[in-house]
Amino acid sequence: MPTTHAATLLNDLRGTAPLVHCITNSVVTTFTANALLAIGAAPAMVDIVGESEMFAGVAGGLLVNLGTCSPEQVAASEEAVTGANNAGTPWVLDPVAIGALPIRTALAGRLAPRSPYAVRGNASEIIALAGAGSGGKGVESTDTTHAAAPVALELASSLGTVVAVSGPEDLITDGERVLRVANGDELLTRVTGGGCALGAIIASFAAVQRGGSGHGVSPLDAVAAAHTVYGIAAERAAAGAAGPGSFAVRLLDELYTLTPESVEAAERVREEDPATLSAAPAGATA
Amino acid sequence: MPTTHAATLLNDLRGTAPLVHCITNSVVTTFTANALLAIGAAPAMVDIVGESEMFAGVAGGLLVNLGTCSPEQVAASEEAVTGANNAGTPWVLDPVAIGALPIRTALAGRLAPRSPYAVRGNASEIIALAGAGSGGKGVESTDTTHAAAPVALELASSLGTVVAVSGPEDLITDGERVLRVANGDELLTRVTGGGCALGAIIASFAAVQRGGSGHGVSPLDAVAAAHTVYGIAAERAAAGAAGPGSFAVRLLDELYTLTPESVEAAERVREEDPATLSAAPAGATA
Amino acid sequence: MPTTHAATLLNDLRGTAPLVHCITNSVVTTFTANALLAIGAAPAMVDIVGESEMFAGVAGGLLVNLGTCSPEQVAASEEAVTGANNAGTPWVLDPVAIGALPIRTALAGRLAPRSPYAVRGNASEIIALAGAGSGGKGVESTDTTHAAAPVALELASSLGTVVAVSGPEDLITDGERVLRVANGDELLTRVTGGGCALGAIIASFAAVQRGGSGHGVSPLDAVAAAHTVYGIAAERAAAGAAGPGSFAVRLLDELYTLTPESVEAAERVREEDPATLSAAPAGATA
Repeated sequence: MPTTHAATLLNDLRGTAPLVHCITNSVVTTFTANALLAIGAAPAMVDIVGESEMFAGVAGGLLVNLGTCSPEQVAASEEAVTGANNAGTPWVLDPVAIGALPIRTALAGRLAPRSPYAVRGNASEIIALAGAGSGGKGVESTDTTHAAAPVALELASSLGTVVAVSGPEDLITDGERVLRVANGDELLTRVTGGGCALGAIIASFAAVQRGGSGHGVSPLDAVAAAHTVYGIAAERAAAGAAGPGSFAVRLLDELYTLTPESVEAAERVREEDPATLSAAPAGATA
Repeated sequence: MPTTHAATLLNDLRGTAPLVHCITNSVVTTFTANALLAIGAAPAMVDIVGESEMFAGVAGGLLVNLGTCSPEQVAASEEAVTGANNAGTPWVLDPVAIGALPIRTALAGRLAPRSPYAVRGNASEIIALAGAGSGGKGVESTDTTHAAAPVALELASSLGTVVAVSGPEDLITDGERVLRVANGDELLTRVTGGGCALGAIIASFAAVQRGGSGHGVSPLDAVAAAHTVYGIAAERAAAGAAGPGSFAVRLLDELYTLTPESVEAAERVREEDPATLSAAPAGATA
Repeated sequence: MPTTHAATLLNDLRGTAPLVHCITNSVVTTFTANALLAIGAAPAMVDIVGESEMFAGVAGGLLVNLGTCSPEQVAASEEAVTGANNAGTPWVLDPVAIGALPIRTALAGRLAPRSPYAVRGNASEIIALAGAGSGGKGVESTDTTHAAAPVALELASSLGTVVAVSGPEDLITDGERVLRVANGDELLTRVTGGGCALGAIIASFAAVQRGGSGHGVSPLDAVAAAHTVYGIAAERAAAGAAGPGSFAVRLLDELYTLTPESVEAAERVREEDPATLSAAPAGATA
């Protein structure tokens, strides 16, 4: 029997193959679907108006990623969230590149108050969602995880959700507790969809946690577990990769072959005192 | 000289590089185009209203896959079928995830009577197209090939087309004869587009059969040949793959290097008596 | 210190990580973004109306590729060019498959006179853009680089831009000088996006040249440098590839690991006398 949340949820995911509904950007649909298939979930990329609401109702989890917010996708996202909330389907918001770009920033502002299970992004996106900054350089963060920490805590409290900030060491908080996940590899930033696929993996772990058989795992733990498992797969993929091309191929292979035992052995998760974070001096770096 | 239909058509395809027009879902466009390029065809992913009708008229074959049926794609699909039928271009219908999802189910219902060369799908999709079921779990089948067999036979007869049902052993029928193709690998179900790319390969074989130099190959044989060749490439790719990531890469390599001689040596195709299928007891499994 | 334009610009690109805004076709977005990430640029695939104009203004370079010209993309392309021209952002036009297809042909006709930094395509596309032909076979050229040479020279002169024609030996001209780049590999034509990603690499080199610290590199040299670097990466990727699947993976790895020193050692660029080209007899082949 697995003894950590990450190992337990991975084990349960393999046994249940949750149906994960994704509305995501056109650059990363293929990689996202392949990551879900590799880890053992059943992806469905349904972003059509008139199909998204009902489908979110039958799915185990939903990802709403704002990376390419065409009018059709904007409308599909809003109806999908309606369907998810009516059915109790946990849904994850990934506010890609908000801040500078007006249409997605407005959409993120409308979706965030609608009870997402989790919000994930890089530091600049989380800061922009909280209304405290103007965003990063396209899809890349120009802020540090540390700088985003107090904002993330407050955002999680006010929205009543889990907020996850990706960085060299990820920060995950529900507004009260703070977990830090050190697993991962820098090559994830050199593959498009490296972060976006994580959003889908979080949705699959949310589906497992919600549908769970009483393991006593909280949403905070489930989101951290998704980061941990994905990060460990990335570390294993990076070992022996010749560059980002072979890394991406190996990442899918590792998500497929990773065992709960390997996860337990490689986890690098720690709890942090939130009081120390809100006292971060201006200009501090992660 | 190749001695089987699969080997003959692969040989002819390499010599003619048929232009294959694809209207397919956004998750699998890249892999589909790469699979066609690898096997030796010339793909063109034209799903624009105002371009699709004329392009289907000049292409050698057309794939219409309903996986992401935006309003633009719905309209482009309907005009492409018009263009194909006016010009005599063979076209393949892949009714992805119909049944539960309303827009694509209605579209499939409008397109299926318009004389497709072939219809391909998993068991749940074929059953849903025949109006006999409510579909699978997203894009995954919840029915078996065996359960779909009588429905497939009747659908092929009533539409006057070839119906192909993917599964552990594929079933291909024109309503009179039934062929079973055992080539393939389970890893195809762990790569997005594993089935959708097969639809495009079928369209390329249809183009070769229609334009053929009198080899006496029937549409039924051509569709079975496409399944056979694709399945053999998958088997060769799976041998040595570390997971679905490397499998997908190797599949493209194998489609590129596969020879007619290797196809002849690895084919696992058999003819089945249709009478035994329609007598299948309820609850039987494939 | 690097001593050639290609090596110098690659070195500068790695140091500055230019933000490259891409509006490109849905078949190749992933590969294009990954190629930019691999070489060291920061891609952003923003093709939304209402976001494209402002984003083109802040980007270092812009690619406009007409491969899947939905109404949304057509409008986004036109506003992006406005934003680029207002801000002085260099932009590259890739008129994919124009000639036979009416919507993209009309769009290319509207965009080409709006001062692109460079136009790139295969021979049939360049001939069609000049109004001298009816296009190729879908996305594949039916004309040779040599046949396109006089047309390319005249087009470059009349538009005041650099015109690049891909082929076994690429031809790049600003209407006065002609450079030929022999680097590259035939496997690029067996991977979807093999040419489209080059358009994005050209935009990244344009960003570096425009923002450059006075190395005295001309736009003609910068476009040729992009072809050279990309072609060398392709040659290195092809060595040891088992087919187009592994080639594409290796190409990303090579773009990531390629050094300015390796570029200098492998460059195959020559200058050609334009007078000899315009005298090409009808029917001559490349």
